[in-house]
Amino acid sequence: MTRAKRTASTDPASPGRGLSRRGLLGLAGASVAGIGLGVAGDRVALAATTTLGSGSGAGAASASMVYPFYGSHQAGIVTPAQDRLHFAAFDVSAGVTRAELIELLQDWTIAAAAMSAGRDVGEYGAVSGPYDAPPQDTGEAQGLPPAGLTITFGFGPTLFETADGVDRFGIVGRRPADLTPLPHFPRDDLDDGRSDGDLCIQACSNDPQVAVHAIRNLSRIAFGRAALRWSQLGFGRTSSTSTSQATPRNLFGFKDGTANIKAEEPDVVTDQVWVSAADGPAWLAGGSYLVARRIRMTIETWDRSILREQEAVFGRTKGVGAPLSGGTEFSEPDFALAGREDQPLIGAAAHMRLAHPTQNHGTKMLRRGYNFVDGNDDLGRLEAGLFFISFQRSPTQFTTVQLNLAKHDALNEYIRHVGSALFAVPAGTPDGGYVGAALFA
Amino acid sequence: MTRAKRTASTDPASPGRGLSRRGLLGLAGASVAGIGLGVAGDRVALAATTTLGSGSGAGAASASMVYPFYGSHQAGIVTPAQDRLHFAAFDVSAGVTRAELIELLQDWTIAAAAMSAGRDVGEYGAVSGPYDAPPQDTGEAQGLPPAGLTITFGFGPTLFETADGVDRFGIVGRRPADLTPLPHFPRDDLDDGRSDGDLCIQACSNDPQVAVHAIRNLSRIAFGRAALRWSQLGFGRTSSTSTSQATPRNLFGFKDGTANIKAEEPDVVTDQVWVSAADGPAWLAGGSYLVARRIRMTIETWDRSILREQEAVFGRTKGVGAPLSGGTEFSEPDFALAGREDQPLIGAAAHMRLAHPTQNHGTKMLRRGYNFVDGNDDLGRLEAGLFFISFQRSPTQFTTVQLNLAKHDALNEYIRHVGSALFAVPAGTPDGGYVGAALFA
Repeated sequence: MTRAKRTASTDPASPGRGLSRRGLLGLAGASVAGIGLGVAGDRVALAATTTLGSGSGAGAASASMVYPFYGSHQAGIVTPAQDRLHFAAFDVSAGVTRAELIELLQDWTIAAAAMSAGRDVGEYGAVSGPYDAPPQDTGEAQGLPPAGLTITFGFGPTLFETADGVDRFGIVGRRPADLTPLPHFPRDDLDDGRSDGDLCIQACSNDPQVAVHAIRNLSRIAFGRAALRWSQLGFGRTSSTSTSQATPRNLFGFKDGTANIKAEEPDVVTDQVWVSAADGPAWLAGGSYLVARRIRMTIETWDRSILREQEAVFGRTKGVGAPLSGGTEFSEPDFALAGREDQPLIGAAAHMRLAHPTQNHGTKMLRRGYNFVDGNDDLGRLEAGLFFISFQRSPTQFTTVQLNLAKHDALNEYIRHVGSALFAVPAGTPDGGYVGAALFA
Repeated sequence: MTRAKRTASTDPASPGRGLSRRGLLGLAGASVAGIGLGVAGDRVALAATTTLGSGSGAGAASASMVYPFYGSHQAGIVTPAQDRLHFAAFDVSAGVTRAELIELLQDWTIAAAAMSAGRDVGEYGAVSGPYDAPPQDTGEAQGLPPAGLTITFGFGPTLFETADGVDRFGIVGRRPADLTPLPHFPRDDLDDGRSDGDLCIQACSNDPQVAVHAIRNLSRIAFGRAALRWSQLGFGRTSSTSTSQATPRNLFGFKDGTANIKAEEPDVVTDQVWVSAADGPAWLAGGSYLVARRIRMTIETWDRSILREQEAVFGRTKGVGAPLSGGTEFSEPDFALAGREDQPLIGAAAHMRLAHPTQNHGTKMLRRGYNFVDGNDDLGRLEAGLFFISFQRSPTQFTTVQLNLAKHDALNEYIRHVGSALFAVPAGTPDGGYVGAALFA
């Protein structure tokens, strides 16, 4: 399906729904004359929009893939990991009230649902009138199918904090006990400007322009209510979240996420990913916790290490990704199996041993990370790494594994954690509702 | 075709060719024991590598696309513009001699030809032994087809300058008369750290991981001989260079490059893109000049301008991209046609008027730019824009148009040129040669 203007007011499935007046003001910025006051523009749908990618590699099947925004869980978690990412964290602006925060979430919901379906933001969209108002959609996704776009929202610990002693949103008492800032891990080298945030949005798509378009338009809708704190593009997924996907490689050249939770394991997903009603708080049931870590890789140093060392560090072969204890990629590792001088073939400091559920009380996470390269630093080294994202039923799952890794992982010689954030991800939104409504109920 | 180890020494088409000892040292860095001294590793080709993208959107057709590296012109110029870009500029390190520079170009040629064909760098590649040496290829492109990878090399003006009064490479006298730094244009706001360079490499592919892999491995091969000066990823092409491609949109939401030179116009390409033998110098015949400009877009301000203003700025409709004088996307604009109050429908300051060949003595350029978003700035504005690349027979073509734009373009209110570079792009390399050999002949 190709992108068409949103036709909310004539769509029987969503009668009367549209952006709030404040949301429309956000789109209009300082020059608000005329917007929302009538149908002044050409409402004929943009005809015959062309789909890019004919010579580009975006297969028609995946380009036209659409995941519904509304549902019992948010999309973008167990959804088969799309190829590209734009992630953004926001801070709610000073002076914003509870009602205004709710209105922002309502506006974001409407816009996210529209974009997920391949529609423009706003009643008039990107390219038709009113000509004396800013377009409601920025337009760079015109003609592009959603390419599997998912938009996933989260709430950071600071959203639940008082500001100048005031419970500004009336939700201080509803903060999940688990939603506290992550502990400081050994070797953490965090940049405040790449960490934390009151709100987050993860936009994933097989077309990066579609993911960028989503974050840009949601940022714009938030104008005056929430401001971008930090953001990150990821050019290639490093995890599979479905058995239908091949395992991708990280920038160390190794397959990553072989043992990841897969959507096809519903019992594991239930056990490890979704917050249950019993876990509490009730408003978060059906949701999850999102951990984001910006992990800078010192790839130049890594590239000078010998192959034997590289494989020892991961505990897997670099080619097929088999455990060093033998077998093929998906063979279970044998951590006891010893080789020369009775040393275990998978060393005590090997990444895959330390991260393995058997070494962490059975803990798993659903990983959804992306490779990134953001230019280079002043020394001519590529600013490259892994933007790690994981979803889990409790932040403790991440903390358990990360403490183990931060202390012992042989990989630490080659990586630095430079950004960190934790968000509570509410359950999915029923059609007609808004994301996180249960928090304010 | 999927990626396999390079088998130079057993490949009759390339007898005995391989990286120089210095190139191999670059790969090995400080720990060089054993490398290049024998066949110590497993030479069995990595069997059954899986191709990513089965669930990801990379159609088999474009993923498996292979453009030959060797030819009369360099690939990556009239090649149909691929979706993703990694561009890098390098400075040759102090103390490097003419012979060492030539050796670097030879090593780059061999590696670029291998990667363009979907092969690893080096005789042993990424994942087989020798186990006591660093892998010759970094490995993150294992299992990925080249997805139309092209690698294009250029020489900057500074390569032809003396260092401390010494003609270090013996090429000062061979500098093309046209290869002088671009003039300062009105409103230029250039960052040295994003400008210029002795050498450049443009890597384009429909798979960003493949483009990143190319730049990374070529940077690595250059270790000790040339260092990365700046680099830029582009996530989406903004130009079509073939009539088979749909016109993409820039981050202002407009179709870009509608009137671009297309590969299917060989006379125009010959006239506007390739340096002729008569143009001089002889070593550059069959080559071109590459201009790169990092153009930051103030998208937040743009997004608040009204649709009428946006269309007036470009001189085209935002929807189908038709000239404001009427017609459809590919209609010729009528710059004289007047509307209300006898004002021309395409205004005097409209971008498309000022950039049009008829307003620039018939000058055209082959544009090959990319959209970028590099996170956000401290004010929460997306660090977004257009990484403009153009190829032309003479830098004067760019300078003519850019002077016109810099002085008058209505778009200037919304953009800033923050990076700039010019490179002479030598002709293509015959099989068995190396890129730029004519310069040193």
